[in-house]
Amino acid sequence: MLIAQSGGPTCAINASVAGAVEEAGRHPELIEEIYGGRNGIYGILRGQLIDLQEERRSAIEGLRYTPAAALGTCRYKIDFKKKPEQAARDMDRLFEVFRDFNIRYFFYAGGNDSQDTSLKIHEEALKRGWEMRVIGIPKTIDNDLPHTDHCPGYGSVIKYNATTVMEVGMDVASMATDEGAVCIIEVMGRSAGWIAAGTALAKRGNPAAPPHIILLPELVFEPAPFLARVRETVAALGYCIVVVGEGIKWKVKRPGNGGEQEVLEEVGADPTRVDAFGHKYLAGAALKLKDLVEAELRTKTRTVLLGYAQRAAAHCASATDIENAVACGQAAVRAALNGQSGYMVKITREYWEDDAGRRHLRWGTALHDLREVANVEHFVPRDWLTEDGMMVNEKFLEYAAPLIEGEVRAPVENGLPKYVVLEGVPAAKKTAESAEPDPEALSPETAPPAA
Amino acid sequence: MLIAQSGGPTCAINASVAGAVEEAGRHPELIEEIYGGRNGIYGILRGQLIDLQEERRSAIEGLRYTPAAALGTCRYKIDFKKKPEQAARDMDRLFEVFRDFNIRYFFYAGGNDSQDTSLKIHEEALKRGWEMRVIGIPKTIDNDLPHTDHCPGYGSVIKYNATTVMEVGMDVASMATDEGAVCIIEVMGRSAGWIAAGTALAKRGNPAAPPHIILLPELVFEPAPFLARVRETVAALGYCIVVVGEGIKWKVKRPGNGGEQEVLEEVGADPTRVDAFGHKYLAGAALKLKDLVEAELRTKTRTVLLGYAQRAAAHCASATDIENAVACGQAAVRAALNGQSGYMVKITREYWEDDAGRRHLRWGTALHDLREVANVEHFVPRDWLTEDGMMVNEKFLEYAAPLIEGEVRAPVENGLPKYVVLEGVPAAKKTAESAEPDPEALSPETAPPAA
Repeated sequence: MLIAQSGGPTCAINASVAGAVEEAGRHPELIEEIYGGRNGIYGILRGQLIDLQEERRSAIEGLRYTPAAALGTCRYKIDFKKKPEQAARDMDRLFEVFRDFNIRYFFYAGGNDSQDTSLKIHEEALKRGWEMRVIGIPKTIDNDLPHTDHCPGYGSVIKYNATTVMEVGMDVASMATDEGAVCIIEVMGRSAGWIAAGTALAKRGNPAAPPHIILLPELVFEPAPFLARVRETVAALGYCIVVVGEGIKWKVKRPGNGGEQEVLEEVGADPTRVDAFGHKYLAGAALKLKDLVEAELRTKTRTVLLGYAQRAAAHCASATDIENAVACGQAAVRAALNGQSGYMVKITREYWEDDAGRRHLRWGTALHDLREVANVEHFVPRDWLTEDGMMVNEKFLEYAAPLIEGEVRAPVENGLPKYVVLEGVPAAKKTAESAEPDPEALSPETAPPAA
Repeated sequence: MLIAQSGGPTCAINASVAGAVEEAGRHPELIEEIYGGRNGIYGILRGQLIDLQEERRSAIEGLRYTPAAALGTCRYKIDFKKKPEQAARDMDRLFEVFRDFNIRYFFYAGGNDSQDTSLKIHEEALKRGWEMRVIGIPKTIDNDLPHTDHCPGYGSVIKYNATTVMEVGMDVASMATDEGAVCIIEVMGRSAGWIAAGTALAKRGNPAAPPHIILLPELVFEPAPFLARVRETVAALGYCIVVVGEGIKWKVKRPGNGGEQEVLEEVGADPTRVDAFGHKYLAGAALKLKDLVEAELRTKTRTVLLGYAQRAAAHCASATDIENAVACGQAAVRAALNGQSGYMVKITREYWEDDAGRRHLRWGTALHDLREVANVEHFVPRDWLTEDGMMVNEKFLEYAAPLIEGEVRAPVENGLPKYVVLEGVPAAKKTAESAEPDPEALSPETAPPAA
């Protein structure tokens, strides 16, 4: 089997690898070798596979609490639409590698793009008659994959971000005297606002508690009602904490064909300049909002830009998130051994009542056809937000609250967390010819389901 | 007694209040009432005192792990130089409040400015013949107070920042393929670089581990050697993590009297604009360095701006820091009861060897004359840095390593830390006339030391 990671790292993506490797280890009669692909497809195309059975058992266990992508990750996409020739060459090379290492089970952990890659590899395997089961494992802090209850990585990022909002809120509140103070915290989320929305858990049901305003990329940003709300909040509480998803957009007038036109543009974009790569320059939404608030309200405003820190914050990970990530890895291996291919594992939630009438939540996993997952983005439903769109309502809170339950305690050495680094012993080639698997041994049901 | 907090909050400043209040509670025969001043001098001038004996005992205990300033804080300064009339009025009003509430012990926790305020109040008390002992309690994440081994708040901020550098470093490393990646993390520190320096603990002695470059405000920033080092690091490791103190400055040419002149200017300043308050516009050092790196090296660069999050991160506090902060509060009260006034508590470290020859560290406290503390800034010694000034050496690491030892576990509720909020019952006035203390009971030695 081969497992690899793709897209932006999270502090739960390694937990899925741990779950998959441990589950695979329970079936030595079916899975002889367990390989990891370095830097996702990017490294696999270069034949960079490592032998995960050479890793210490404690290292695999330690992946549960280790942030980032222990196997390495990439943003490489096999793009048949834009680069059909390159994509065809990549597929040939990929299946060469699969043959070289006799890969019969392939697991790819990632977000939307990665699920698309998994689907394409599954379809190619069918087309080429290469007997291999392909299962996608969900992962993205953005929480924008469809059909799954949530995405591994999301629970941890909002636990950390809500903790930060709570702490920064106390800090700013304790400094607020008559002058008032505003703090704008920019969080990730280019098109979906799940991360910004999740910080509302810091309120704990107290309307006066921070965050006081959240701005999601799903809604067009309108300065006037935003500024009015900041003003009201500072007047009432002496301070205001704003959480903004990095990708919020507003309508601005820009020169276009036939004169000035109204376009939708990132609030954080600086239209007067381009970056070193010739792209639109992004100074950041928080910085722009700070300028707006200071200019209009004359209230001192500070910014926080959590950036990569939020998705790597394993020291503040959610145990629920990590457990579900492990379960996704395990379920992927079990599904493949069961003969399934072309699916993504999804997380399910079920509420049940005990004899005393107490409500409990049971997490589970199921499979979903990759064709309905790949390249589909899932947004925060409009009716999970307040009417003005600047806060979530009870529906969102009921959804999100269980995702941050439980703490993960990584071992500590000299006051800092002790994370795992894999040895990364290169895998030896082992072609189907050199080690023809017993067809009977592959798994009980060898026919993959119709794609 | 009256205790108050001043300056930027930290996640250890409340621990000093807990230490002081608990110590005072052990001497009910000497200290009848324990008051807290709201928002430091700012609130005390307005008579905003709260009765800390009305707080639940668990709340006072909980201050140990609660970030921000539970009593509120301020940046208000009694400035006899710039505003002599206002300062004189403020002093009159302060002593009116001291009389109204019969304050005989005054404790002020804060940084350089606050120690200066403590000194002035001590001198005024002597001048006015108001029998009162004044002791300053050190606090500042900047760690720039002189004479004390370190400042409460500093250990926690570098524990959190080093953890963040470690996590972000793993994240960026796991994404680095042939293109290379740079991440610039901006930390606090306008003039002293202790915070940036402290993130070097994340290296754990591994030269290849992040941070790869640290930039301190003590040294003039020079772009050429910096860019060369970034280039080398990316070439060797595929990525580079830079930590920059927010206040770094460089030499730039600006129009002045008699033509262009070379001036020292914040790297993060944008000389083409002013902010809403007419001050120099600061977009931030990290953003400027990102532009430099992308323009010169054409390497994708992301930024992290921890801002207030770093000084409020009680969820990642250092137990050593918190214990020393508690000890400072306790020592302040004991010193005052001993008849001392006009001092700041300082933290001392002593190494000793046990019978087996093992080296141990013993923390302690002592007093230092406020006149030698007030308005003196303590910088990172040049010989604690490498020759090129872009990394610390063993001397710094030996100093800083013990400061981040030990974890503080705040109680957790629904996945988020449960911090304390004080009830804040207003204190009732209790003048010296209405409750003249028994002079014998004040304390064994009533004469304050000569100021």
